Amino acid sequence: MSSAILTRTLAAISSVDLERMAAVQARLDRQTKPRGSLGRLEEFARRFVAITGRETIRRKEIYTFAGDHGVAAEGVSAFPREVTPQMVYNFLAGGAGVNALARHAGAEVRVVDMGVDHDFGGLPGLIDRKIACGTANFRSGPAMSRAQALTALEAGITLAEAAVDAGIDLLGTGDMGIANTTPSAAIAAVFSGLPVAQVTHRGTGIDDKALAHKIAVIEEALRINQPNPQDPVDVLAKVGGFEIGGIAGLVLGCAARSVPVVVDGFISTAGALIACELHPQVREYIFAAHRSVEVGHAALLERIGQQPILDLHMRLGEGTGAALAMSLIEAALRGLREIATFDQAGVSRGSDQ
Amino acid sequence: MSSAILTRTLAAISSVDLERMAAVQARLDRQTKPRGSLGRLEEFARRFVAITGRETIRRKEIYTFAGDHGVAAEGVSAFPREVTPQMVYNFLAGGAGVNALARHAGAEVRVVDMGVDHDFGGLPGLIDRKIACGTANFRSGPAMSRAQALTALEAGITLAEAAVDAGIDLLGTGDMGIANTTPSAAIAAVFSGLPVAQVTHRGTGIDDKALAHKIAVIEEALRINQPNPQDPVDVLAKVGGFEIGGIAGLVLGCAARSVPVVVDGFISTAGALIACELHPQVREYIFAAHRSVEVGHAALLERIGQQPILDLHMRLGEGTGAALAMSLIEAALRGLREIATFDQAGVSRGSDQ
Repeated sequence: MSSAILTRTLAAISSVDLERMAAVQARLDRQTKPRGSLGRLEEFARRFVAITGRETIRRKEIYTFAGDHGVAAEGVSAFPREVTPQMVYNFLAGGAGVNALARHAGAEVRVVDMGVDHDFGGLPGLIDRKIACGTANFRSGPAMSRAQALTALEAGITLAEAAVDAGIDLLGTGDMGIANTTPSAAIAAVFSGLPVAQVTHRGTGIDDKALAHKIAVIEEALRINQPNPQDPVDVLAKVGGFEIGGIAGLVLGCAARSVPVVVDGFISTAGALIACELHPQVREYIFAAHRSVEVGHAALLERIGQQPILDLHMRLGEGTGAALAMSLIEAALRGLREIATFDQAGVSRGSDQ
Repeated sequence: MSSAILTRTLAAISSVDLERMAAVQARLDRQTKPRGSLGRLEEFARRFVAITGRETIRRKEIYTFAGDHGVAAEGVSAFPREVTPQMVYNFLAGGAGVNALARHAGAEVRVVDMGVDHDFGGLPGLIDRKIACGTANFRSGPAMSRAQALTALEAGITLAEAAVDAGIDLLGTGDMGIANTTPSAAIAAVFSGLPVAQVTHRGTGIDDKALAHKIAVIEEALRINQPNPQDPVDVLAKVGGFEIGGIAGLVLGCAARSVPVVVDGFISTAGALIACELHPQVREYIFAAHRSVEVGHAALLERIGQQPILDLHMRLGEGTGAALAMSLIEAALRGLREIATFDQAGVSRGSDQ
């Protein structure tokens, strides 16, 4: 089983323009400041320009992918399953964390139903890519079929393509799905090779007993399903989630169209890692928004090879970290565009210049 | 020698309202998110409201204090001394790093001549609080007199008072002064008790040999001047700087008027620490903008007891970190104001709620 959309997307991904990156750094080095003194802002600026060839951000969008999880039946979350559709309504009404922070960053929030266990009945504003009413419980078999996993990836890819065609030049990812730290921890364990207990944490706030149970459920899921880390679509199908597949697809679509993507926290990074395992150069298009409280996040970030921009002890998901990080990337571009050079400002150079 | 302005300012500083802080957290805990899941954003929101009683930021200003340093004659900086006035012109023309990042944050930059070795001749936009054309070289005696140190503190205090009277409800600090990581490292050594070599770094980019010399100069300055850590004005006078005194005064003035102040990097934190050593409750009004690359910054932050908001490997000063951090405080307040409660949104609570 394969996917023509996935195949052409992977074929379109290549390395970013290193000459453009060096040219940006040379400009930054002529600006009125000690060389390198804006630290990671300079990295953000040179990476954004190397990826896009542009120095401004016209429009920003955060895609919040929602889906339900069969494994929620195992009691791995502190919240009941009906919260997934309730939060979808909250996103569309503008009342969730991601809405508030996206307004601050000047970004639009787009909400995608990838597989929520609820009939929204053509709700205005909701992007309907529903694959099924939640995944199967992966404790006793695959979360979804390989065909469904490919459909999830395709949904994300085509959403990225449409966004880029509409003039969006910075995308962000977000997630909503009760129990979805469980598949994310499973994905972290599969690709990192680390013990499940080292990458599994408390999600929305479970106690020690529930955490031990969550670890046991994931260990059993990995033993029964035997996901193959050499085949990222197999991993997504067996222990992933529909929203995680959507995120992976969005990241792939961004990389294929040379648009940077700000990847939110733990769940989003699990999706992004599936994209990176499908094509190694995807990582060059990723900005890691923040370091999540979830302990497995570090293992995911290490495999992606990007340092998080923020470390504010957040663990909300939805795209909240992506919204904050977008604003810092924009600040970096403003520095690139607006700081005068030594010659323009008539400022003497230092001995390092 | 004393100062009536300083005395009444210190008398006006008291602890922030802990009941108001608890009330804000209770509201955050009713919002549609797992409890505490916005991490440090929740801390920023509850501290801002506890300090001010307000939930919005109307106007933000960054005060960039400039001054020259006699110790620059020792070759402790990678940049020549004339860069201080050149950068003042650059700030006023809007071409420096702090200008670009402040525009991004929607903050105004105010430039204060505390003691630049240059005659600006009534330059429009420049706030003239010049005490002298640079400090004396503290390698062979005090950087300034005690009277000058008090004048520097008063300048900062009165600027804060005027800003608050004008409706500014978030202030930031910044600095410009070639060689000013040298007095800042001296201040860090005096108050922390750590060896000079442990708190002294490369500033704008000096090499190993110049760093060893910088350390030796500070060690000699401390031996000759014997600054008394029990008397913060003495420390400012003997091994400080005019712009550092202005920053300390601004921080004191903010605390006395119950307005939060975002303290930039290494030099600003040295000034803020002098304010905290003058009155312990000043720390409750400080937001530490970012973790500087300068190794001595950690020792200063530890004594102030505030964790930095950002860690982007910056080392530019000017108020650049303060500008970025202001935006995150504003995002936190937006979260407080705009995220719906469980009841408003009809979302089910979790087992932790």
